[in-house]
Amino acid sequence: MEKKPYVIGLDLGGTNSVFGIVDANANVIASTSIKTQGHGDINQYVDACVAALRPIIEEVGGIDKIHAMGIGAPNGNYYSGAIEFAPNLPWKGQIPLAQMFHERLGIPVRLTNDANAAAIGEMQYGAAKGMQNFIMITLGTGVGSGIVVNGTVVYGCDGFAGELGHVIVEREGRQCGCGRKGCLETYCSATGVARTAREIIQKTDKPTLLRDIPLDKIESKDVAIAAGKGDEVAKQIFEETGRILGEACANFAAFSSPEAFIFFGGLTKAGDLIMEPIKRAYDATVLQIFRGKAKMLVSELDGAAAAVLGASALGWEVE
Amino acid sequence: MEKKPYVIGLDLGGTNSVFGIVDANANVIASTSIKTQGHGDINQYVDACVAALRPIIEEVGGIDKIHAMGIGAPNGNYYSGAIEFAPNLPWKGQIPLAQMFHERLGIPVRLTNDANAAAIGEMQYGAAKGMQNFIMITLGTGVGSGIVVNGTVVYGCDGFAGELGHVIVEREGRQCGCGRKGCLETYCSATGVARTAREIIQKTDKPTLLRDIPLDKIESKDVAIAAGKGDEVAKQIFEETGRILGEACANFAAFSSPEAFIFFGGLTKAGDLIMEPIKRAYDATVLQIFRGKAKMLVSELDGAAAAVLGASALGWEVE
Repeated sequence: MEKKPYVIGLDLGGTNSVFGIVDANANVIASTSIKTQGHGDINQYVDACVAALRPIIEEVGGIDKIHAMGIGAPNGNYYSGAIEFAPNLPWKGQIPLAQMFHERLGIPVRLTNDANAAAIGEMQYGAAKGMQNFIMITLGTGVGSGIVVNGTVVYGCDGFAGELGHVIVEREGRQCGCGRKGCLETYCSATGVARTAREIIQKTDKPTLLRDIPLDKIESKDVAIAAGKGDEVAKQIFEETGRILGEACANFAAFSSPEAFIFFGGLTKAGDLIMEPIKRAYDATVLQIFRGKAKMLVSELDGAAAAVLGASALGWEVE
Repeated sequence: MEKKPYVIGLDLGGTNSVFGIVDANANVIASTSIKTQGHGDINQYVDACVAALRPIIEEVGGIDKIHAMGIGAPNGNYYSGAIEFAPNLPWKGQIPLAQMFHERLGIPVRLTNDANAAAIGEMQYGAAKGMQNFIMITLGTGVGSGIVVNGTVVYGCDGFAGELGHVIVEREGRQCGCGRKGCLETYCSATGVARTAREIIQKTDKPTLLRDIPLDKIESKDVAIAAGKGDEVAKQIFEETGRILGEACANFAAFSSPEAFIFFGGLTKAGDLIMEPIKRAYDATVLQIFRGKAKMLVSELDGAAAAVLGASALGWEVE
C-alpha cells in the first residue's frame, strides 16, 4: 500500500515545541509552535499541542493525508515511546507521550531522543542518504549522538544507546552535569568551548579579542567570531576542542567503523575552524585500517527546520 | 527447507588450524587439525586443509550432510571473505580464503575474525543465547571484540568494526603493536597484565611471590597463581587491570547499551580476581541510566573447543 503523503514532526525542546507537516522530499508544508512550559500537567500540554496542530492538519487536507507522527525529545525512549526523567522538561517521571498523541490523533506515533531524530533526518533527507553506517554528533549546549548501524539507529537493550557525549575522555577531568567527570560534552559542547576559553584566557597573557568580553559572559559564538578574525587564542580554543573531538571519533571508529561522522548544531557554524582540527586529530589518531575511510561531514539539514525534519523522518519509518 | 545437520568450523590460528564438524547443539561430532605454517603458498595450505577434512566429512556421512563452513581467522573480513594483511600469518596481502574453500568443497563458506566468531558462537550456543545486544571481549595475547546489535555482528562500512582492543584509554600511554599509544590491549591483554606486573614490581619494595620469577619471564598466569594464593601485589595487578577494563566497558555502554558484556580467553581463568574489579569499576563509572543493566559474564564456551564452535556458528548464519 502506498504511504500517505505527509508526516508530522514535533521537535520538543525545553523552551519551544515546534511542529511541521513534511512531505517525502523534506518540504515543510505547514508549521506551528507553542511554548513547552506553562501548560500545567502533561495532558493539558498535549491538548494544547493538538489544538495548535488541528488547523495545519486541515490545511494539508485533513488527518487522512498524514502517514504518521515522529517526535524528537530530550530523554525520549524509542522502545517505550516515553520521555523518561528529562531534567529540563516540566514533567517528572515517565511520560508516555507517543501513546498520548496516538490516542488524540488516531495515527501511529514514534518518539526518540533529539540526536537520534537528527540521525534519522539525515538518513531520510540529508547528508546520510543511502548510508548504512554513520555516526551523528550533535554539538549544542550538550553533546548528543545518534549511531546508525546497518541502516538502523542503535537503541541498545533499553532504548538509551548512543550517549557519546557521556563517553569519558579525560579521567578525573571536568565536572559534568551527569555527576561524573571528564565527559566529552564538558569539552566539546558550546558550553565546553566557553569553558575552555575561560581556562585559556586565565592561563595566558597573550592578547586576544576575547578579553573585551567579561570572562563569565564568553560564549562559543564569541570564540567563533574572534577566530574568524584571525585571533590566535580563539583559534587555539577550536584547535583544542577539535583535537579532543577528533580523538574521541577515532575511538568511535573502532566501535562501528562508520562511513561518515556527521556533525550538527551551533558549533558547526564555525566551519573549518572546528572541522579542520577534528579531521587532523582524527587522521593522526585513528587505527591504521580505518585511516582515510570515514568522511567528516556537516549536517545538510542545518537551519531552523532541521530538528523538525529529523523528528518527522521518524514518521516515515512506520511501515 | 530444513538445514542439513552439520557445519564445519575452522579456527585458524598462527600456530594451528583446528577443524570441527558440529551439530546444532554444539556437539563437536568429529575434529582434526593441521599446522598453519610450513605448507608453502596459500593454495597448498588449503589443499592440506581439505585433505585433512575429507576423512572426517566421510565420517559424518559425506559433504551432503554439511550445511556450510565458518572460518574464524585473524584479520578475517566478513564482507570480502578474505584474510587481509594479517601480521602473524604466513601469507601476505589479501587471501580470499572463503572462496578457496568454497571452490574445493562446494558448500557456502563464511569468514570473520576470531573475536566476531566467538561472539556468534556465544549467541548460537552459549551465554548470549537469545540476546539481541551484547559485547564480547576476548582477553588473550591481545584484546579483541565482537559487538552484536539487534542480533547481528557489527561489521561497519568495511568489515573491520569492533576493534575495541584498540580504543585508546590512555593518551600517550603504553606503546601498542599497532603503532599508536595507550590502546586498551596494552593494559588488559595477557601481555598487558605481565607488563603491569613488571612495572609494579619495579616500582615497589613490597614482598611478592612474583619476585621469585625472573622479571622478563613473568606471565599473566603467574600473576593469577600468586593472586590465588593471596599475594597482595598480584591482587593489585588484577585490580588495576580490572579498573581499566571496567572503565572502558562503561564507555562502550554509552555506545550500544548492551544487555551483557561477555569475557572470553585466558585471563578469565583468574575468575573473580579479574571479574570483581571489572564489575566494581564499571558500576562506579557507568552513566547513571545504564547502571545495574548490563550483566558481566564469562563465556560459556571456554575450553579447547570454543574457538571452533565460534567459527562453526558462522556456518549456521547461512540461510
